[in-house]
Amino acid sequence: MADTVLPQAGPVDPSGWTCPLPLRDHPRVVMGHGGGGALSAELVENVFLPAFGDGPVLAALGDSAVLDPGGARIAFSTDSFVVRPLFFPGGSIGDLAVNGTVNDLAMSGARAAWLSCAAILEEGVETALVARVAEAMGTAARRAGVQVVTGDTKVVEAGHGDGVYLNTAGIGLIPPGVDIRPQRARPGDTVLVSGEIGLHGVAIMSVREGLEFGVEIESDCAALGTLVDAMLAVTPDLHVLRDPTRGGLAASLHEIASAAGVGVTLQESAVPVPPPVANACAVLGLDPFYVANEGKLVAFVPREHTDAVLAAMRAHPLGAAAAVIGECVADHPGMVVARTAFGGTRVVDLPIGEQLPRIC
Amino acid sequence: MADTVLPQAGPVDPSGWTCPLPLRDHPRVVMGHGGGGALSAELVENVFLPAFGDGPVLAALGDSAVLDPGGARIAFSTDSFVVRPLFFPGGSIGDLAVNGTVNDLAMSGARAAWLSCAAILEEGVETALVARVAEAMGTAARRAGVQVVTGDTKVVEAGHGDGVYLNTAGIGLIPPGVDIRPQRARPGDTVLVSGEIGLHGVAIMSVREGLEFGVEIESDCAALGTLVDAMLAVTPDLHVLRDPTRGGLAASLHEIASAAGVGVTLQESAVPVPPPVANACAVLGLDPFYVANEGKLVAFVPREHTDAVLAAMRAHPLGAAAAVIGECVADHPGMVVARTAFGGTRVVDLPIGEQLPRIC
Repeated sequence: MADTVLPQAGPVDPSGWTCPLPLRDHPRVVMGHGGGGALSAELVENVFLPAFGDGPVLAALGDSAVLDPGGARIAFSTDSFVVRPLFFPGGSIGDLAVNGTVNDLAMSGARAAWLSCAAILEEGVETALVARVAEAMGTAARRAGVQVVTGDTKVVEAGHGDGVYLNTAGIGLIPPGVDIRPQRARPGDTVLVSGEIGLHGVAIMSVREGLEFGVEIESDCAALGTLVDAMLAVTPDLHVLRDPTRGGLAASLHEIASAAGVGVTLQESAVPVPPPVANACAVLGLDPFYVANEGKLVAFVPREHTDAVLAAMRAHPLGAAAAVIGECVADHPGMVVARTAFGGTRVVDLPIGEQLPRIC
Repeated sequence: MADTVLPQAGPVDPSGWTCPLPLRDHPRVVMGHGGGGALSAELVENVFLPAFGDGPVLAALGDSAVLDPGGARIAFSTDSFVVRPLFFPGGSIGDLAVNGTVNDLAMSGARAAWLSCAAILEEGVETALVARVAEAMGTAARRAGVQVVTGDTKVVEAGHGDGVYLNTAGIGLIPPGVDIRPQRARPGDTVLVSGEIGLHGVAIMSVREGLEFGVEIESDCAALGTLVDAMLAVTPDLHVLRDPTRGGLAASLHEIASAAGVGVTLQESAVPVPPPVANACAVLGLDPFYVANEGKLVAFVPREHTDAVLAAMRAHPLGAAAAVIGECVADHPGMVVARTAFGGTRVVDLPIGEQLPRIC
């Protein structure tokens, strides 16, 4: 039960990470790394603090981070991340853990400021792998302009986890005058998407199943804070923002239609589905509308601001392929209906369960 | 991969929880409960929302909760909970998840206001068990005066989890003039503990190992917010507060000594160790100083306020057995030294690893 057996050294880490002296005898995680003692402290000091930049708030290593939001309204969000594999084309569980929570905050119009990071490690996982994940988180956090300020590590026995599970919670500041939430969708709103859909889910599935589609499909994993800033610079009166992750575009539009009691009509041909995603979905039996994205957003925008918001999105690297894909209507409340390229219509159902498990 | 096999009904739930209609065909968790579709929504609506009280912020079910802290300084903390068994004498993983984060915030002098709750469920766990855990969290949150305002659910395949893992993050408001952190320990400070130590760890071990000690030992799991309020009412100038969880009293005092560059001297006989804990520790080969607590705190208090703070603690139900156990000294910085009942001294080392794995 205690760490009586000294684990053997794992394979050389492909990232070239050098195990610091105190961890040298523990190339793999042992139960004691979650025990709150010297081993826990070594893991935090050698792996997490260097990766997260060792700022004054985190370095204080208090039970909680003390923050001063200066009287602003704040947004607060959490997500756990159980994706496998941990590293995939275009990203990693560490990127997802940062960008996922940054994006959830951005969907309230909030600029992410502070993150927590909690890891559940499986006994026996290489410490070098944990270090690579931490490094990926730190890099993603710096890129997104957010600080990791508090954290926690637990270790579970081999066979009760899967290498690394992460949780992040985040606090973001909401600019004055901004009120973005699903309930604000109104008939007449234009529905926009910030770019090509389906990339994250297909990237995960292709690497997980060892499939080749002629071209490597990379996850779109990205932090959307600056894109939302650019949109808010046009008008603070965006009605709804949503990042179509699990359940894809279909689930996001359903949640909005249901929350606001409105209908959504899509122009199927207007939804940007890149050919490699379309091909992969055909092979895998998936519908791109249901496939997860990790660097895209859907926006419900008042008609009078649509052109300007779309222009601002297209001027941003993460919105270059932004498009108007439909509109919000008073008809069929709670339903999403797509007009097909052939002039017909089809109902876009809410997915029942899991099309692609452990995608994030 | 998808939920093609309908799981069979589990045993009748001992709590008498009745499975609501939409969950009736799913007495056990399937991968689809983590998929972001209709099954996920059913789980949230039937299990988590009723348990957490369905307040306006949570019920909005946005990607993040929008909060208005009114210009106060805030504390932010996170912890994951992997305790087994999920229910134990005196509490459950749900109680721990609420009280653990409430207490981490209280150790900054912050009154917990908002919690997030993220669950990692193992495929196949009974939905009734998830409901019992959620109910325990909801009850603990109401008791602690904190609101669960945002959440997340993920599902991992059987064999990659252990029923239910929880994560909470919390935001608390820090009253003006309060600055409580390990770095503020000063030679001359009195060291107090709020009550008897070792109860949580021994309760978990006894039920896990099926041991009997003549008397059932119950976890001390409790939320310490109101106790801290009572102490702050005496003086805002408390120097350090710490809840001695993993690693016990020894690890907490070590962290403080190390952070502040001071020494700590304990009167071993002054530390309240209840006889059943002392007996159990003797049997199990444990040292009570290293055993986890979940409803106790250690305080470093300026000498001139000690009597009044101690009286305030003793007047509170969670501090009835509070005691002065030692003092902060300029000698042996970073070290904790105990004076034994026989007049000798011993060094209280920082634990290396895990004495009791998965205690919280």
